[in-house]
Amino acid sequence: MRRVYDDIMATRKVDGINNFWKALAGEPDTLKQTWTRVKTVMAPGAIDALTKELIYVAVSVTNSCRYCINSHTAAARHKGMSDAMLAELLAVVGMANQTNALATGFQIEVDAAFQNGGRRTPQ
Amino acid sequence: MRRVYDDIMATRKVDGINNFWKALAGEPDTLKQTWTRVKTVMAPGAIDALTKELIYVAVSVTNSCRYCINSHTAAARHKGMSDAMLAELLAVVGMANQTNALATGFQIEVDAAFQNGGRRTPQ
Amino acid sequence: MRRVYDDIMATRKVDGINNFWKALAGEPDTLKQTWTRVKTVMAPGAIDALTKELIYVAVSVTNSCRYCINSHTAAARHKGMSDAMLAELLAVVGMANQTNALATGFQIEVDAAFQNGGRRTPQ
Amino acid sequence: MRRVYDDIMATRKVDGINNFWKALAGEPDTLKQTWTRVKTVMAPGAIDALTKELIYVAVSVTNSCRYCINSHTAAARHKGMSDAMLAELLAVVGMANQTNALATGFQIEVDAAFQNGGRRTPQ
Amino acid sequence: MRRVYDDIMATRKVDGINNFWKALAGEPDTLKQTWTRVKTVMAPGAIDALTKELIYVAVSVTNSCRYCINSHTAAARHKGMSDAMLAELLAVVGMANQTNALATGFQIEVDAAFQNGGRRTPQ
Amino acid sequence: MRRVYDDIMATRKVDGINNFWKALAGEPDTLKQTWTRVKTVMAPGAIDALTKELIYVAVSVTNSCRYCINSHTAAARHKGMSDAMLAELLAVVGMANQTNALATGFQIEVDAAFQNGGRRTPQ
Repeated sequence: MRRVYDDIMATRKVDGINNFWKALAGEPDTLKQTWTRVKTVMAPGAIDALTKELIYVAVSVTNSCRYCINSHTAAARHKGMSDAMLAELLAVVGMANQTNALATGFQIEVDAAFQNGGRRTPQ
Repeated sequence: MRRVYDDIMATRKVDGINNFWKALAGEPDTLKQTWTRVKTVMAPGAIDALTKELIYVAVSVTNSCRYCINSHTAAARHKGMSDAMLAELLAVVGMANQTNALATGFQIEVDAAFQNGGRRTPQ
Repeated sequence: MRRVYDDIMATRKVDGINNFWKALAGEPDTLKQTWTRVKTVMAPGAIDALTKELIYVAVSVTNSCRYCINSHTAAARHKGMSDAMLAELLAVVGMANQTNALATGFQIEVDAAFQNGGRRTPQ
Repeated sequence: MRRVYDDIMATRKVDGINNFWKALAGEPDTLKQTWTRVKTVMAPGAIDALTKELIYVAVSVTNSCRYCINSHTAAARHKGMSDAMLAELLAVVGMANQTNALATGFQIEVDAAFQNGGRRTPQ
Repeated sequence: MRRVYDDIMATRKVDGINNFWKALAGEPDTLKQTWTRVKTVMAPGAIDALTKELIYVAVSVTNSCRYCINSHTAAARHKGMSDAMLAELLAVVGMANQTNALATGFQIEVDAAFQNGGRRTPQ
Repeated sequence: MRRVYDDIMATRKVDGINNFWKALAGEPDTLKQTWTRVKTVMAPGAIDALTKELIYVAVSVTNSCRYCINSHTAAARHKGMSDAMLAELLAVVGMANQTNALATGFQIEVDAAFQNGGRRTPQ
């Protein structure tokens, strides 16, 4: 547990451990594997670290997860998200939820061009 | 309706209208106001157009909206999303859904530092 | 089971049993209690029968339940829903999903006047 | 912003602006377009204004949006919803959520008669 | 109402009525039919009573229902759930939410062997 | 990848790899870390393996994830779930979704006895 906590603080350049990881203190496997996965997934790759936080917030808002909205909005600010970006992010999330409901309610058929998410070759 | 359809095709540089907008053909107000809003929201601003599509896909996956996943994955590819980016996007979405459930289930208190999404000054 | 099926057909003035109730054929308790509850809840009362179907469709769209959207949209048509009403219903559902996301994402405080859903006296 | 706020107060015959619209003060486009859409969608049409509020509450409950449940339950009361109507509304919402889960879990096929939401002619 | 309340206290071997049932006091039909259904569904059968509570908590976490998470986590403890079991339960719920998102996002086809939930004979 | 696939087949005593893992073939990190986590989480511990599958199905139904419902219903059958158990499982899931909506809609306060999920000592 100590080793994971040290790695969390070193990776994030912070002095303390937030409540999420404290809640997992009694579950060493969950703690270690979840942190390992978070570290891999949130590291910059084909998508940069800030964009990944924006995506995280979008999911957390759609799930109504209060802890997650707060912790990842804070993390996104830390990585450079401005108030204007937050406003645009939530505008996209709001619109996606609206059009999702319209597409679901009207039971709209997937256009041929959009099949398989627009892949040219079969998956 | 014709004017909105022309604007959709001109804005997106495509030759046809996809099923979502066809389904709204009989509702001129919904069609016009939804398109006006989509055009504003998805235009590049503080957040670039591709990142906005990634956020859209993240919400659509979380909502299990089949039409929306396909149409916006296709749109994201059109704007430059690679297979590697899609894979990372879904890794973030998967992880966010997992940790959302953990935070909700353990009923974790929001850390003081994360209150109001980490804003320094009161909202 | 026979008695419940007869009551479903008599109450709904139809000649057959739809797949939902067939799926519950092997669970007499679930079948009987669910039907008793449906019959009570969907009967006209302080809210008329058609409005109740509209509410049912709104929930089913929000939950992405394909069977439920189809069966209750059909039931709503049977009770008088026009195409124009369906379009307005989905416009409300879409907007509610959009503003729900905005309210959740901006973490908006409940106004004093809206506390307890606007009840004048304590609940 | 002032103009939109004035229109909100005039349309709703209230003296103040609730927190939702205040939160959008910094985003003139989102404020104006969202209000325009709300005004159109919630106006009486093929469906009356009270029924639209009931539908809004149904979606908000299904999404667990605390602000939205409170603000739209208050709005529905303002437009004539009684305690008995609220109780019946929630009974329908509860039942729809239950049967949605049963239909999804048993993976029930859509009956031929319910295809396309019971439309007689192809959409 | 009195009779239902007495039955709740007798069945659960408790001295008081919790807020959920108090909230239904004004709706005798909803109170009686919901309690009858709860009593039937939560009684030990092919699945034991504790496992049923674990399933209830899993759904409540996925729905972000604060009251339900608290009341059913308490009920599960009462029926023998340990802290270790709660931790494992939430680990499964977290993982299911993660892989649900991956399966939905990648739009994975159901394997032939899993069709109809792995039933050997047609349903 | 080969090593993970071999471990999946050995652990599950099956001859092939199902589509979920095939879809992750191009993402070695996601594949390995997700499988490691699945293996840990789904192994018998304080909760037995079959109960864990039932919980998985409950979440998948609540999320409307078609692939997940089919694959984990099949897995649960493989571990001993009977048709009667599936029916009871879905009855609990249906009821939990119903009462979740009632508790959320009526905005019921958490009883003192249920605070912190009924823990005797502070968390």
